Amino acid sequence: MHRYKINVEYKGTNYVGWQRQNNGMSIQESLETAINQLTAEKVDVFGAGRTDSGVHALNQVAHFDLKKIMELDSIRDGLNQYLRPQPIAIIKVEEVSSDFHARFSARQREYSYKIVNRRAPLTVDQGMAWILHKKLNITKMKEAASFFIGKHNLGAFRSVDCQSKTSIKTIDEVAVKDIDHKIFINVKAKSFLHSQVRIMVGTLVHVGECKIKPKEIKNIIKIADRKNAGPTAPAEGLYLANVFY
Amino acid sequence: MHRYKINVEYKGTNYVGWQRQNNGMSIQESLETAINQLTAEKVDVFGAGRTDSGVHALNQVAHFDLKKIMELDSIRDGLNQYLRPQPIAIIKVEEVSSDFHARFSARQREYSYKIVNRRAPLTVDQGMAWILHKKLNITKMKEAASFFIGKHNLGAFRSVDCQSKTSIKTIDEVAVKDIDHKIFINVKAKSFLHSQVRIMVGTLVHVGECKIKPKEIKNIIKIADRKNAGPTAPAEGLYLANVFY
Repeated sequence: MHRYKINVEYKGTNYVGWQRQNNGMSIQESLETAINQLTAEKVDVFGAGRTDSGVHALNQVAHFDLKKIMELDSIRDGLNQYLRPQPIAIIKVEEVSSDFHARFSARQREYSYKIVNRRAPLTVDQGMAWILHKKLNITKMKEAASFFIGKHNLGAFRSVDCQSKTSIKTIDEVAVKDIDHKIFINVKAKSFLHSQVRIMVGTLVHVGECKIKPKEIKNIIKIADRKNAGPTAPAEGLYLANVFY
Repeated sequence: MHRYKINVEYKGTNYVGWQRQNNGMSIQESLETAINQLTAEKVDVFGAGRTDSGVHALNQVAHFDLKKIMELDSIRDGLNQYLRPQPIAIIKVEEVSSDFHARFSARQREYSYKIVNRRAPLTVDQGMAWILHKKLNITKMKEAASFFIGKHNLGAFRSVDCQSKTSIKTIDEVAVKDIDHKIFINVKAKSFLHSQVRIMVGTLVHVGECKIKPKEIKNIIKIADRKNAGPTAPAEGLYLANVFY
């Protein structure tokens, strides 16, 4: 068997998410179908991160095994051909050793969240950002973000559907950038709880709206109750930006 | 009469362009209709740049006159309400003196062109960039871009439909930036010929594909014949980025 690593970009708007499900088309199923059409082999595709319905990826990583050897460029171009006209693209294909696993070998994942902060509705960013009309206090959001860094019980920042055994996670970086009324929140960690980034963003927005003080993040983490954190930010602003190995 | 200046963002994909036409919906007509719905006044809207069908704007500027005085925030929010769900948004409204003219008072316009340069097709950028699969030589494109700076006869870089009396134009800046396989070409000038940026981009792409040498730009300008320049780059990669007064 030969193991192939792929880098995948997609617009998640019309998908049920990464993971194969009965109620609609998933990225995983689209990829497995295209691989089957190209290679006549039935494969399972393993992704580094299970993005939710509506979440996009700039650089998702996945792997699958083939019995046959194929030229890497032919896999990339062939899959892109079969994926057409879906908004899913194979950016790169590499052959990797059989101990590589897209999910378990990942050292770090990076998610990026895009907020457009202005009175006017979205045009060029429709479906690709969260529009917030009330002016956010970026300085306070930056201060609040710093309290997330480190190893914590993030029980307050997981959805009720989260199946992770532990809610102890280490956050490596939370960066809040403000570029001309567009706010980007980038979060890096080895792994994430379900909806963690979206709940973190919803809570940082509460800080930006001055509903809670930046320092309050420390208490919300400490008490570890989902009720104290902010709302789950909408899927359309979230991008799986990178996976590092 | 009271003159209002507006900053407008739009996704040009499904429009015939800025200018009112019989064969489809224009940005100008959408704005005039919304202003009429909000104010019950029939107005002409004058834009700083007449973007073509499919061209986007991050910051188009326009003006119109009203008999009544209205609060600026009410104009912005009211127009955005009537424009819904069209991808046209009023970012800002100011009252200006009656000698301000969105088109004739403009000192400088900035257009930005986005190319995605990779084998894989577009996903998140569908309709918002030009995909070019063949690797472009950015160094050569940067060298070529420098030959555009200054005052020239740009007869080679105007469409056959161009109605400008003169083809003598001064280009202030041409910047070529390459960020992770996304190439941005920014052009600043007081004014532009019809399709000028798109033909400049098409010609720079010929340089990037090594079909012509960077220095050849000098000859193409000198001979001033449309035949010698490159193709007109597609509308979907072009953004009216800024208008300066």
